[in-house]
Amino acid sequence: MVRNFHELEQSLMKQEEEMQRVAVVKAASSSALESVFELAKQGLIVPFLIDDQAMLDPLLMNMDIDHTSYHIVHVESDEEAAFKGVELVRNGECGFIMKGNIQTGTLLKQVVNRETGIRKRDVLSHLALIETPHYPRFIGVTDGGMLLSPNVDQKESIINNATEVMQALGYKQPKFAVLSAAEVVQPKLQPSVDAEELTKRFEPSENCIVEGPLSLDLALFPAIAAEKQYKGRIQGDADVLVAADVVNGNTLSKSMILLGNGAMAGLIIGAQAPIILTSRSSTAEEKRRSLLLALQISRANARKEC
Amino acid sequence: MVRNFHELEQSLMKQEEEMQRVAVVKAASSSALESVFELAKQGLIVPFLIDDQAMLDPLLMNMDIDHTSYHIVHVESDEEAAFKGVELVRNGECGFIMKGNIQTGTLLKQVVNRETGIRKRDVLSHLALIETPHYPRFIGVTDGGMLLSPNVDQKESIINNATEVMQALGYKQPKFAVLSAAEVVQPKLQPSVDAEELTKRFEPSENCIVEGPLSLDLALFPAIAAEKQYKGRIQGDADVLVAADVVNGNTLSKSMILLGNGAMAGLIIGAQAPIILTSRSSTAEEKRRSLLLALQISRANARKEC
Repeated sequence: MVRNFHELEQSLMKQEEEMQRVAVVKAASSSALESVFELAKQGLIVPFLIDDQAMLDPLLMNMDIDHTSYHIVHVESDEEAAFKGVELVRNGECGFIMKGNIQTGTLLKQVVNRETGIRKRDVLSHLALIETPHYPRFIGVTDGGMLLSPNVDQKESIINNATEVMQALGYKQPKFAVLSAAEVVQPKLQPSVDAEELTKRFEPSENCIVEGPLSLDLALFPAIAAEKQYKGRIQGDADVLVAADVVNGNTLSKSMILLGNGAMAGLIIGAQAPIILTSRSSTAEEKRRSLLLALQISRANARKEC
Repeated sequence: MVRNFHELEQSLMKQEEEMQRVAVVKAASSSALESVFELAKQGLIVPFLIDDQAMLDPLLMNMDIDHTSYHIVHVESDEEAAFKGVELVRNGECGFIMKGNIQTGTLLKQVVNRETGIRKRDVLSHLALIETPHYPRFIGVTDGGMLLSPNVDQKESIINNATEVMQALGYKQPKFAVLSAAEVVQPKLQPSVDAEELTKRFEPSENCIVEGPLSLDLALFPAIAAEKQYKGRIQGDADVLVAADVVNGNTLSKSMILLGNGAMAGLIIGAQAPIILTSRSSTAEEKRRSLLLALQISRANARKEC
């Protein structure tokens, strides 16, 4: 079980596996290139740089990199870049996607295209994986970035999406706490009603343990679960927090990072390959951690296919 | 302006004002009595202990306290205790209420009684005031404890309630960030729509500045507001975060406390006097901080009445 980003990197370095190829969609962005080549130099990934070659070449020439270590896929528009990136995954040439200098919507439109896309489940979701000094291992938060106000069916898919990621990290039966303000079901509080329904739906599952409604303290702190004499399968030891909606999930991960000294990796999951979606505020370290996480998932996918 | 709990206590000790009287409803609880008498010994409050005298006496006899420093109000039921506590506030004998060993609902039922209660606004709300090492002064979070899923009118009252508390702490025009996942209005995301409406409603207000939708990082971190070139009156310097709903507010304050080393005081506000509502998980320190905050508000109310 991989518990933090240091262990994740160690485990990736140890595994003797083929290098995974990453499709960088609209790669002519210094910060995207720097993140990608940092891992390329470590021998972990091979970048497929998708962009207008005339834009890419000057950037690449200025970088201290091995110019045989990457591929360029020349395209002339954002739509074409997105199409190519998705195609590389569909054809099995690339194991995951990194968004460069392109609007998220333009990229995702190609991902979900019913004919040429790489859909797997009905729902794409966002997973934030957070390492914090206040918890002994990763805390996942989902969904704080994709679905605005998911209904219970979408939440079921969100949980299935995240289960695969946690399993790729070695959590055989990850524990999902479905968040509410307390552990009681209140008919007028939809998140608590959804939580009860999700608990029922996943009760027979061997892939994961899903339980709610739970407040944050009951979900994460064994001492509080004991003090409140909470009877359940989650005893302050949740692996992933299932947010009530995007505001809840987004606020919670930002709070853990900015007010709790946390470090995060973020991915869009639920397609055939993970997608790294860097935002305006992503730091270089966050991009690097997200690449490592995507690589881990991508290797797990490759092993499944063998 | 009072920025943290140390400053709050210092300021309360310095002011030369009459002692405020607190109505402790169902006071026969060791932990409630200990919190109350800690401040009574400091000469800050006079406790009115409302409970069955036969239950109270043995507890009081075992305490190292001045037995002329409190009043006992004998009652024989929870309902009577709640009625009496509310009556003491209504008659001006007590400046605030502390919930002892009684169900919250039983107490609040008397508070909101249209004939014998102490309503002020239509809405009672919960305010958590949090001190965290990651922010230069208090962060308020409202509402994470009372209203499950407030509509925009209720959110307006929630803001008015909290404005009075912040003003009692010396914030002349407190800044309220109405939370969402980002700073854009998305018609399908109700919290962002509410935030826009609240911004409009409060635009002419001199009592407070209200702005949204805002994400947590834009609300609290000046560097992020600058980096994202956010144009607004709140530039990472919000005083109070207005949560989308109870799950959002509850999760956020618990995250700041448990994952961000925060210290909290919590009150029910919006009635004629603040109400301290201790929960199963409140620590002695939290009760003490809540008492200090209630005392500050109670003194401010007394000054207004003079």
